[in-house]
Amino acid sequence: MPKKGEQPPQSEMEPSPEILSDIEIATSVRPESILDVAEKRLGLTPDVLIPYGHHIAKLNIRAFDNPVTELKGKLVLVTAMTPTPAGEGKTTTCIGLSDGLNRLGINASACIREPSLGPCFGMKGGAAGGGRSQAIPMADLNLHFTGDFHAVTAAHNLLASLVDNHLHWGNKVGLDPRRISWRRVVDLNDRALRNLIIGLGGAAHGIPRESGFDITMASEVMAVLCLVTSIDELQQRLGDIIIGVNYDGLPVTVRDLGADGAMTVVLKDAVMPNLIQSLEHNPVWVHGGPFGHIAHGCNSVIATQLALTFSDVVVTEAGFGADLGAEKFIDIKCRQSGLRPHAIVLVCTLRALKMQGGVVKESVALPDSKHLKKGLANLAKHITNIQQFGITPIVAINRHPGDLETELETVKTFVSKHNTHAVIADNWRDGGEGAEALALSVKTAVDGKAPDVEMLYHDDIAVENKIHTLATKLYGAKAVEFSIQAKKQLAEIQRAGFTTLPVCIAKTPYSFSVDPKQLGAPIGHVLTVRELRLLAGAGFIVVICGDVMTMPGLPRRPAAMNFSIDNNGNIKGLF
Amino acid sequence: MPKKGEQPPQSEMEPSPEILSDIEIATSVRPESILDVAEKRLGLTPDVLIPYGHHIAKLNIRAFDNPVTELKGKLVLVTAMTPTPAGEGKTTTCIGLSDGLNRLGINASACIREPSLGPCFGMKGGAAGGGRSQAIPMADLNLHFTGDFHAVTAAHNLLASLVDNHLHWGNKVGLDPRRISWRRVVDLNDRALRNLIIGLGGAAHGIPRESGFDITMASEVMAVLCLVTSIDELQQRLGDIIIGVNYDGLPVTVRDLGADGAMTVVLKDAVMPNLIQSLEHNPVWVHGGPFGHIAHGCNSVIATQLALTFSDVVVTEAGFGADLGAEKFIDIKCRQSGLRPHAIVLVCTLRALKMQGGVVKESVALPDSKHLKKGLANLAKHITNIQQFGITPIVAINRHPGDLETELETVKTFVSKHNTHAVIADNWRDGGEGAEALALSVKTAVDGKAPDVEMLYHDDIAVENKIHTLATKLYGAKAVEFSIQAKKQLAEIQRAGFTTLPVCIAKTPYSFSVDPKQLGAPIGHVLTVRELRLLAGAGFIVVICGDVMTMPGLPRRPAAMNFSIDNNGNIKGLF
Repeated sequence: MPKKGEQPPQSEMEPSPEILSDIEIATSVRPESILDVAEKRLGLTPDVLIPYGHHIAKLNIRAFDNPVTELKGKLVLVTAMTPTPAGEGKTTTCIGLSDGLNRLGINASACIREPSLGPCFGMKGGAAGGGRSQAIPMADLNLHFTGDFHAVTAAHNLLASLVDNHLHWGNKVGLDPRRISWRRVVDLNDRALRNLIIGLGGAAHGIPRESGFDITMASEVMAVLCLVTSIDELQQRLGDIIIGVNYDGLPVTVRDLGADGAMTVVLKDAVMPNLIQSLEHNPVWVHGGPFGHIAHGCNSVIATQLALTFSDVVVTEAGFGADLGAEKFIDIKCRQSGLRPHAIVLVCTLRALKMQGGVVKESVALPDSKHLKKGLANLAKHITNIQQFGITPIVAINRHPGDLETELETVKTFVSKHNTHAVIADNWRDGGEGAEALALSVKTAVDGKAPDVEMLYHDDIAVENKIHTLATKLYGAKAVEFSIQAKKQLAEIQRAGFTTLPVCIAKTPYSFSVDPKQLGAPIGHVLTVRELRLLAGAGFIVVICGDVMTMPGLPRRPAAMNFSIDNNGNIKGLF
Repeated sequence: MPKKGEQPPQSEMEPSPEILSDIEIATSVRPESILDVAEKRLGLTPDVLIPYGHHIAKLNIRAFDNPVTELKGKLVLVTAMTPTPAGEGKTTTCIGLSDGLNRLGINASACIREPSLGPCFGMKGGAAGGGRSQAIPMADLNLHFTGDFHAVTAAHNLLASLVDNHLHWGNKVGLDPRRISWRRVVDLNDRALRNLIIGLGGAAHGIPRESGFDITMASEVMAVLCLVTSIDELQQRLGDIIIGVNYDGLPVTVRDLGADGAMTVVLKDAVMPNLIQSLEHNPVWVHGGPFGHIAHGCNSVIATQLALTFSDVVVTEAGFGADLGAEKFIDIKCRQSGLRPHAIVLVCTLRALKMQGGVVKESVALPDSKHLKKGLANLAKHITNIQQFGITPIVAINRHPGDLETELETVKTFVSKHNTHAVIADNWRDGGEGAEALALSVKTAVDGKAPDVEMLYHDDIAVENKIHTLATKLYGAKAVEFSIQAKKQLAEIQRAGFTTLPVCIAKTPYSFSVDPKQLGAPIGHVLTVRELRLLAGAGFIVVICGDVMTMPGLPRRPAAMNFSIDNNGNIKGLF
């Protein structure tokens, strides 16, 4: 249970100076050998693991049946309210909850996404959790880790080079160079690569055409990697990817170019799940990492399935707020894989709630019940949204030092009026022990009857109706507006016969609307659809809304400016 | 000794059908645990190694003094005649020689470069040796290996994104966007990326400007990684890199942008040497991989130094023919590091000699003493070139099945007139046993007095004289011609005060001249210098000659089209 008596006095509004940084905490704990963790906690012998150093390993999927046929564990999804710069702590809660469950004697593991270098160099900070609920080794996880994203980048760009090479050597399949949809990717924030003209310099240097780069986390290759359950399915789906149309307007696939085999070879190790440990030496699976706002935002199906084979409870997360993460988790990942969550945890913080109520970041630590109450509208909307999927979420309040008891009670009381309850999570400060109350609530849920999880829409309704359903039922929008380009793309998708696919909304994660400044739970807004991208290999249609970018930019002063390392390998400034 | 009695009959001109492919041989040998190889052959305990799977490890450089102060071993360079499509087998000889030395009871290791994905997907095939002289695990080595090149790519492109981000956010250092020399890189052959316009699409997407991509193996970051001896030196040299000039025409460095720390952090693991094994379980160091024709073509100094700390003889190689590889090895790698070769082996084959004599690839297996004799001019030029550095090379004839005894004798007799001798190497067929004769010759050389190795030019002669020296003394050229652009760049380099740096010639590897069709040992040609690039961090000036490209293209039918993999991870078509 959380040590309530030990909480800081209510007047202490800011973290005290002696609070350690995430990397200080992460490096203060000596990790166990990952082979020991795997053996003790999962019953996995060293022969089925491929070590990457002493504290990271890949699970050799060849040692197991793929796809997995029997899952012993129960799946818990951690999602969150609409994120703010104050942070809500979704990964922290995910890891803390797994540690808490383990403290209760439950064989649990966490299952999260791999971080991208882009935000790491930009402004986001790490993606390994925080405080006493982190996955380690933290610096390695946030840097190249086991190279999975580099492999995705290489496979994606290999295809791009084969596309342009095909044009250069006579264009046998008759690919229309003006209508190639396959772009290139890089695992960096690099706005100058968004829109390019390539192939300049004369006949020896290819066919000039417009193109651009997205961030690797938006790559269809990443999406495919995160949805397959075997090498064969990986090659099959990569082959299905559409890279453009020919001069007759018919889709041209990766298979038409003969690139599916090579791309699969490039991904032969990346398709294997990675295993690390929490600060409390419980298993943390980390695999795949599509962004939650511009992609489907879930770790891999293969990691989730294998985690469920070796643990009784698997705690996973999905990107950004529940409107994006939980929705895509259910409507895309669960729809395609057959996985179903047994319980959902919805994370919030007092500070984030206040920001949703209109307070600026600088003032979030001040007592402010007025803005807190206003911000609760955001939480309420997420609760009722999740209830539409047939599950009532447990609300976790991720406590910051200095949170006021009265304000915490305000949230609890508010939540209790929504047919559920809120639990204070102190794992940021206390690790698994601080998450025991939350773990008890989750245990009760997973011990109970499995909920009847419902997708928000059926496969067979029209694509525009799928978008309309999400816009009106989840976002509070009154209408959907399609750009001329989007309308044309919609018609192309219908003509090509892909209307049964689910949609993957790409929009700002900072509001239910397409305007990041509209906080709380706005209603009556319009979802403006700018562009549609058919991902025939991944099996969904990306719907790009508002002005969201599939290639982020760096801020004025990138975080990378603060990085340093000494001759002993000690890294500073990373987080 | 080679089993001469067992050689195929002389009438057998083509490899017999039962000859196994490289990957068949490579996967037929069960590798030992790399920890065992390290302990048994190098005396390295597991605590100083970082495993990447069971057969690859990085040496944790933090466990050793850097830079290394005492080298116990002697260094042998393997170089080659001018390469042809028939192949000459430089890496094969390098690994076979190390195996042969080990068979003689000498504690030897090989030290080679990491392969690039670009040629792997294009046409070159693997870079792990061939036949019975290979480094394993071969597929992993040729694919992502330990991610070093991905890290180089990421560090290089992180800098590029920071450069464009700096322009976007007000350009505080006054960088002239028209004169930014820092391009981007990708570890692929992708001709359409050679010349680009980036930053298109409006004010939110950066400053439009011309730029382009090179292959990662031409990156200055790669060169720096391969020349430093510590993390501190890595950061220092990365900081020295010049990315362009400001509006006053003065150089702007990485340090000016504050990017050196982050780039070093990105390279924290890549700077550590990788250890694998030969088919005979002898140590093979594999680290770094600048191309030999467009970059300095040598594996890392740090790997070479550490190999020399743990082995009595280290056999290394340098890219393409001796005009490029051996020259850069001595004039750049040795000049900067203080390393000196004790012996040099010059590899040739009958087939490649015939091609240098004018035979087409399809006819190389036919008896043809006329073209063989004509082609020997190429070998002679390389021998006398190497003698200019103060070392007389031992010539290794890498025997193919079906090579005629009389033709082999022709080569031996020819070589003996050049103050040295030729040894037949049968290690492609027989492994280390087939290289014992060569190993004996090398043993005699390294047991003898160290040669007085001389650089071909002094630091303090003018840059154009350095180029002129190489052109006339090594290439047989009568003159050097500078383009208008190159003259301007020469003046800029002088103005910036970098005239004492050595030069790194970038030119076709297929001829002494800039014309790949001029075979043998052409004389009287002109070295046309197109462009100069100052690599202030790497500490040399790249001199781009003829129409050589720093970004290769893919052929009409890329090798990637043949790749496949099954659910058990068996790869086909790779080599």
